[in-house]
Amino acid sequence: MKILAFDTSNKPLSVALVEDGKTLAHIESTEKKTHSITLLPDIQKSLKESNLSVDDIDMIAVADGPGSYTGVRIAVTVAKTLAFTLNKPLVGISSLELLAANGDEGMFIVPLMDARNDNAFAGVYQKKQGKIVNIVEDHHTSMDKLLDLLQKYDEDKLEFINATQNLTDLIREHSHAKIITSEDSLPDATKLAKLAEHTEPVKDIDNFIPTYLRLTQAEHDWYEKGNKDDGNVSYVEEV
Amino acid sequence: MKILAFDTSNKPLSVALVEDGKTLAHIESTEKKTHSITLLPDIQKSLKESNLSVDDIDMIAVADGPGSYTGVRIAVTVAKTLAFTLNKPLVGISSLELLAANGDEGMFIVPLMDARNDNAFAGVYQKKQGKIVNIVEDHHTSMDKLLDLLQKYDEDKLEFINATQNLTDLIREHSHAKIITSEDSLPDATKLAKLAEHTEPVKDIDNFIPTYLRLTQAEHDWYEKGNKDDGNVSYVEEV
Repeated sequence: MKILAFDTSNKPLSVALVEDGKTLAHIESTEKKTHSITLLPDIQKSLKESNLSVDDIDMIAVADGPGSYTGVRIAVTVAKTLAFTLNKPLVGISSLELLAANGDEGMFIVPLMDARNDNAFAGVYQKKQGKIVNIVEDHHTSMDKLLDLLQKYDEDKLEFINATQNLTDLIREHSHAKIITSEDSLPDATKLAKLAEHTEPVKDIDNFIPTYLRLTQAEHDWYEKGNKDDGNVSYVEEV
Repeated sequence: MKILAFDTSNKPLSVALVEDGKTLAHIESTEKKTHSITLLPDIQKSLKESNLSVDDIDMIAVADGPGSYTGVRIAVTVAKTLAFTLNKPLVGISSLELLAANGDEGMFIVPLMDARNDNAFAGVYQKKQGKIVNIVEDHHTSMDKLLDLLQKYDEDKLEFINATQNLTDLIREHSHAKIITSEDSLPDATKLAKLAEHTEPVKDIDNFIPTYLRLTQAEHDWYEKGNKDDGNVSYVEEV
């Protein structure tokens, strides 16, 4: 089975074509161009590298958030349109679960997505014989609350993934747990394809939407200012 | 030639399948569901009504803004992905030009998109033997400036299209020109398909992006607050 997998929930864009566990193509781009510009060309490139046409794809896998609001939205829209046009199954994987796939066997893996103001998106996962198991559901949290929640785990068994400098500093105030920084923990679409192989496809593709877990800061500010969602050029009408 | 056309730049969603000027299917939805949920099912419905499969489409036409930030973004992403997957040409039409298609022959047609705070997106068009000709380019403007700019036209020859109640009130303070309100001027995807027939397809589909003409209010507020675009979960990184 040939799986096209892509992740745009972080700054780097990762696209992979994987057939029965074997990577046919893997494109990582960290260039400054926006994901909405680079995603389709990168998919095209991965097909070309694999000598495949778009009709050869058997399954689409996408990281469906949390993460960059627009990045995830674009990826999910492209994934849905591909699944619809090609009439192929679609699998959505948590962006945090995908980061957890970068963690180590036997550890309590805490993938993070910096949400500014000392907040993060986070979950707790374990890797068991290569399979990723969710222990604490993905949620939006202050780092204080998260570190508090994690006190029940042995510090030596904890592994934070994708910590920015600020999150690293906050963790280090309380804990000597292992930290894998953002630079050393890029989301990897080949891992996304492998996770997708063991995940139920989306049943209702039409109603499949990204997992935001909270309003973006911009939306929050917008509402805080007393704005209402009633105009012609409404900001959040699609959220 | 079978053209699939859709517009999501306003509250109503309009999808049409048109073959050589003949409407095969036309779906207008004004329901509360978001465009990102209804667009693909409505495309599917239009294909079914026409007894066509997605592979039968010869061209994709999309209204590419200005308008609802997310609406336009979703439509353009779906259009690009369809054009890429089906390997078919893509035509982008200004959302204001599409509204101008609802205007009358011989008039100076001023399509409007309410941008709040007494501002609008607007252009000036004429309809000549059914063809739409642009006179003043689409731009973001205060209504004061727009009405000033329009003073050089004979009031009896002016026709405003898609005016909300507030824009209607502002126009009426200065002018007795003809006004077609939003309720009586829904964007019509069958007209979009007809405009697309006479328009050059997009040359570089990969770099095709919506026409925003200005930052959204939310982005404006975000920057006003002194925020910078450097975090992990950045709001505007894709704009």
